[in-house]
Amino acid sequence: MYDVEKIRADFPILSRTVNGKPLVYLDNGASAQKPRAVIEAVTLAYAQEYANVHRGLHTLSNIATEKYEAVRGIVARFLGAADEDEIVFTSGATEGINLVSYAWAAPRFEAGDEIVLSVMEHHANIVPWHFLRERQGVVLKWVDVDGAGNLDPQAVLDAIGPRTRLVAVTHMSNVLGTVVDVAAIVRGARERGVPVLVDGSQAAVHMPVDVDALGADFYVVTGHKLYGPSGSGAIHIRKERLAEMRPFFGGGDMIREVHKDIVTYADPPMKFEAGTPGIVQQIGLGVALDYMMGVGMEKIAAHEADIGSYAMDRLKGLNWLQVHGHADRRGAIFSFTLDGPAHPHDISTVLDKKGVAVRAGHHCAGPLMDHLGVNATCRASFAMYNTRAEVDKLVEALELCHDLFA
Amino acid sequence: MYDVEKIRADFPILSRTVNGKPLVYLDNGASAQKPRAVIEAVTLAYAQEYANVHRGLHTLSNIATEKYEAVRGIVARFLGAADEDEIVFTSGATEGINLVSYAWAAPRFEAGDEIVLSVMEHHANIVPWHFLRERQGVVLKWVDVDGAGNLDPQAVLDAIGPRTRLVAVTHMSNVLGTVVDVAAIVRGARERGVPVLVDGSQAAVHMPVDVDALGADFYVVTGHKLYGPSGSGAIHIRKERLAEMRPFFGGGDMIREVHKDIVTYADPPMKFEAGTPGIVQQIGLGVALDYMMGVGMEKIAAHEADIGSYAMDRLKGLNWLQVHGHADRRGAIFSFTLDGPAHPHDISTVLDKKGVAVRAGHHCAGPLMDHLGVNATCRASFAMYNTRAEVDKLVEALELCHDLFA
Repeated sequence: MYDVEKIRADFPILSRTVNGKPLVYLDNGASAQKPRAVIEAVTLAYAQEYANVHRGLHTLSNIATEKYEAVRGIVARFLGAADEDEIVFTSGATEGINLVSYAWAAPRFEAGDEIVLSVMEHHANIVPWHFLRERQGVVLKWVDVDGAGNLDPQAVLDAIGPRTRLVAVTHMSNVLGTVVDVAAIVRGARERGVPVLVDGSQAAVHMPVDVDALGADFYVVTGHKLYGPSGSGAIHIRKERLAEMRPFFGGGDMIREVHKDIVTYADPPMKFEAGTPGIVQQIGLGVALDYMMGVGMEKIAAHEADIGSYAMDRLKGLNWLQVHGHADRRGAIFSFTLDGPAHPHDISTVLDKKGVAVRAGHHCAGPLMDHLGVNATCRASFAMYNTRAEVDKLVEALELCHDLFA
Repeated sequence: MYDVEKIRADFPILSRTVNGKPLVYLDNGASAQKPRAVIEAVTLAYAQEYANVHRGLHTLSNIATEKYEAVRGIVARFLGAADEDEIVFTSGATEGINLVSYAWAAPRFEAGDEIVLSVMEHHANIVPWHFLRERQGVVLKWVDVDGAGNLDPQAVLDAIGPRTRLVAVTHMSNVLGTVVDVAAIVRGARERGVPVLVDGSQAAVHMPVDVDALGADFYVVTGHKLYGPSGSGAIHIRKERLAEMRPFFGGGDMIREVHKDIVTYADPPMKFEAGTPGIVQQIGLGVALDYMMGVGMEKIAAHEADIGSYAMDRLKGLNWLQVHGHADRRGAIFSFTLDGPAHPHDISTVLDKKGVAVRAGHHCAGPLMDHLGVNATCRASFAMYNTRAEVDKLVEALELCHDLFA
């Protein structure tokens, strides 16, 4: 039994009002709210247990280090990684993918080498590869989605050629909600000897993930979407790839020895974690993941499937509204535009008057906007704490928009 | 009048005990504790005002964006920068210096080009330059300190040759406490046409900084040492240098447009701030800097000068203890070793039993350890909330160490 009201009570912000109306937070695709347990862990860390981590020998440093390092095991468990040394802490998905681009791809890829991408990728999984195109002549090969927003795994595999060095693909579109069959892509790509990076920024929030079963080379998540603090995150990197990577950030903690004429590096994952890390953010991320696992990822997925199919039914009932994305397998993310003159920005503003928070814009997905032939959409993205009643409030507010702009 | 007890009351952790003794926190060089105002701002941000920043049009996103972006002005005011567009947010000093290395230096420096460094630099201001040595044949030229730990500005300027492309120097040593005359270095280097990076990680915590008056090209600070959250930070970069830098992290927010075949970038500082940033950490940093400015940097410096000279007097009274660093101008950071068999790690552990938190190790300063001829030291580093009574407790605990190990 999934007690959504009990879950809602764990998130302090959900009891606030916006413009005099109860907050209906449907901007989870941009960032999720934080349960009280996370907020309290952050407060405790700063108010009672704070010090820098590693190499400190005093009590506070030991407490902070133990709590911080314990998160690696929590992330490993959450992602299904048997080996926690394959978990590298990051400040989020952007740092994770740039780490792969700078530390693994840049020194290995040559002009004419190819990266296969889907047209649904988020800018975080595009711009680092554009850098390689601009700077060293790497070629980006784009795979389109069909009219419903499905990405055919075979189309991705067909795009692989003799010069393909990487497939970089999202597990779940932040715009269309499409859930990609990354298992089929990984299987096929690995048969062809091509490593795969999976952007799990959205997927890991909404469904169980098992990176060891999946077998991708790089699996990226970001903490602030996982109900954790801003500036937290991690990436799972298979040992073979870790061994191929050169250091990225230089500084403390990632070295073994530093002299005037020589530097030697720590073993992974420390090799890729330079300087004072996001100590308290990572501690908070651990609490967030424990919270999710406590509820159960299967249960979260089932709840969101229910909300998602209810939302799709209700939105389909509005014949002046277009939902972009009807993939066979999709999550509870709905991008839409309204017939008539209402710009997504206007819609978002009107919805906000009713307490309904949605995002409007290009959602950091330029190539997909080009593919859809729009500049912007509105996006309502659901999370573990949303309810059918909130879907109704969204629809009510949209009807008001329609009346205003029709 | 500097009311240190009032300040102490603002820092919740300072009223806790460690091993049954009141905490004497002297590990500020590694990271500073946080005032209640910062902790409460973080809690408020997560519990009532959280959303992702930029491009959101709903109330929570607008609140978060306004609070987040306001911090740029606070940092500018704190650092004496007239133009807040010269402030780039980072996750800390390590990201700041790596940004300079990857985005400015790497694409411009050629084999044989030289970087002048002092032997006192922190690994964060060494390893990024070692990367350029390893990867593209850049030469590191080291400038020694004298026996007291003074860095002669003229020696730095004398190290500049026709191939020198950058001087990278600390404003205050995290080991010796030496305050470097960076103004003289910047003046001379700029006369010679050589840009200067100043690592202000320690200095900005302890004295007023005016980057516009100083005129350095890059001035780096880190939030967690400035009584702000872990994972917060900023770098001041002169406009001319910003214009020369290529993007570093690729992702959302740093772009203007992204298409399949082309990408265009936002103007600085956004160009260098990819992805969802450390929203709440930066908001907390703003509160921390406001707190410091509220107390007054001149007053903080005067208080710490008093504590520092008292501590130096007391430590000099221990004839079995060596303080490393007696520079003419120094802050309240004391690295020391004890005569006899006591390893710094042992000393730190014994001090901890008395509630006194100091750091032991190489302090991320390998070349300086080589210069001093030691593997490790103990370090007591003071901050705005420390007292003469705490100096006495440190000395008492050291006397116990001496008795134990003598």
